[in-house]
Amino acid sequence: MNRFITLEGMDGSGKSTQAKLLADYLREKGEKVLLTREPGWGELGKAIKQQVLDRRDIDIEPYAELCLFCADRVQHVKDLILPKIKEGHTIVCDRYHDSTVVYQGYGREIDIALVKLMAETSTLGVEPDITFFLSVPVGQALSRLKNRRESTKMDEESLLFHRRIDRGYREIEKGLSRMKKIDASRTPEEVHAEIVSHIV
Amino acid sequence: MNRFITLEGMDGSGKSTQAKLLADYLREKGEKVLLTREPGWGELGKAIKQQVLDRRDIDIEPYAELCLFCADRVQHVKDLILPKIKEGHTIVCDRYHDSTVVYQGYGREIDIALVKLMAETSTLGVEPDITFFLSVPVGQALSRLKNRRESTKMDEESLLFHRRIDRGYREIEKGLSRMKKIDASRTPEEVHAEIVSHIV
Repeated sequence: MNRFITLEGMDGSGKSTQAKLLADYLREKGEKVLLTREPGWGELGKAIKQQVLDRRDIDIEPYAELCLFCADRVQHVKDLILPKIKEGHTIVCDRYHDSTVVYQGYGREIDIALVKLMAETSTLGVEPDITFFLSVPVGQALSRLKNRRESTKMDEESLLFHRRIDRGYREIEKGLSRMKKIDASRTPEEVHAEIVSHIV
Repeated sequence: MNRFITLEGMDGSGKSTQAKLLADYLREKGEKVLLTREPGWGELGKAIKQQVLDRRDIDIEPYAELCLFCADRVQHVKDLILPKIKEGHTIVCDRYHDSTVVYQGYGREIDIALVKLMAETSTLGVEPDITFFLSVPVGQALSRLKNRRESTKMDEESLLFHRRIDRGYREIEKGLSRMKKIDASRTPEEVHAEIVSHIV
């Protein structure tokens, strides 16, 4: 049975590592797996990522950023995720619409109801079956990020911004039965073991 | 007194010609005038226009198109229109948020309430003082377009699409006191004379 699995959390929470470990685990079990991530898939997505995340010379208004992430997602769903689901793949996606709600709603402080509406519309109705929220203390995530070679504009935001992201994930998690909160302050192996324990 | 003036209508209605004539007229009266257009202003806008309007190899989902036009507008308002208004310029803008409501709402048939909300948000609260809706019969607009050297993806849409655009403008005009409907089937000189008769 194929599933649509998303991973969420702050940068530095270990999402990408866990997404890869999970995809490998499912492939070893014989499943067809698509491992993908947002933002920046496809030609439109790459152009958007270059214009939003990677440029420091343009001051992007928060609402423009929200629109661009939603446009990126629609194309990702339509051109990659949906066709792969139809072919019987399990999807493991590193960030999805919850990231939009948390980063643009809580982080950028755009009206949450508007952000939720736009983010939900951007999924074309393709909701994840299960979402792993990798929870780490803000300080631990930031110190992990410092050790990375490359950083994005989001990484360079203020401590207050990162605290709003943390709060955002904790708040939306309460209302979402598909979201499993995972203590990601532990070793990658421990986190992976807990994640797969939720996979039926 | 500076004003924010927008021109709306189907492609082939003569908007661009009238925008230029109006800007020249106001400049001759001694006003500082910014003549601009949507979509595609600025670095982000140019990238968006290349990805949406000018590419035939990517099939852009209507909601992605809506998001991209809104992102384009926000940056246009923030980086160009608002600063020029503050410097005392009159703004003459060829297409603005009404185009989003008509093209993405009526044309692409995305939920009108969502499109209106997103389009209004994309103005950052900068509403036009007056909007000229250049009304021409659909057949006349299309035959004018045929004589153009360059066409956009929108121009190549079906006759039904263009009829929905026509209907959209007629419907939104009823509820907008700032919108002046102008019979644009006449000569450019006649249309210009009527437009300036509305400019105080």
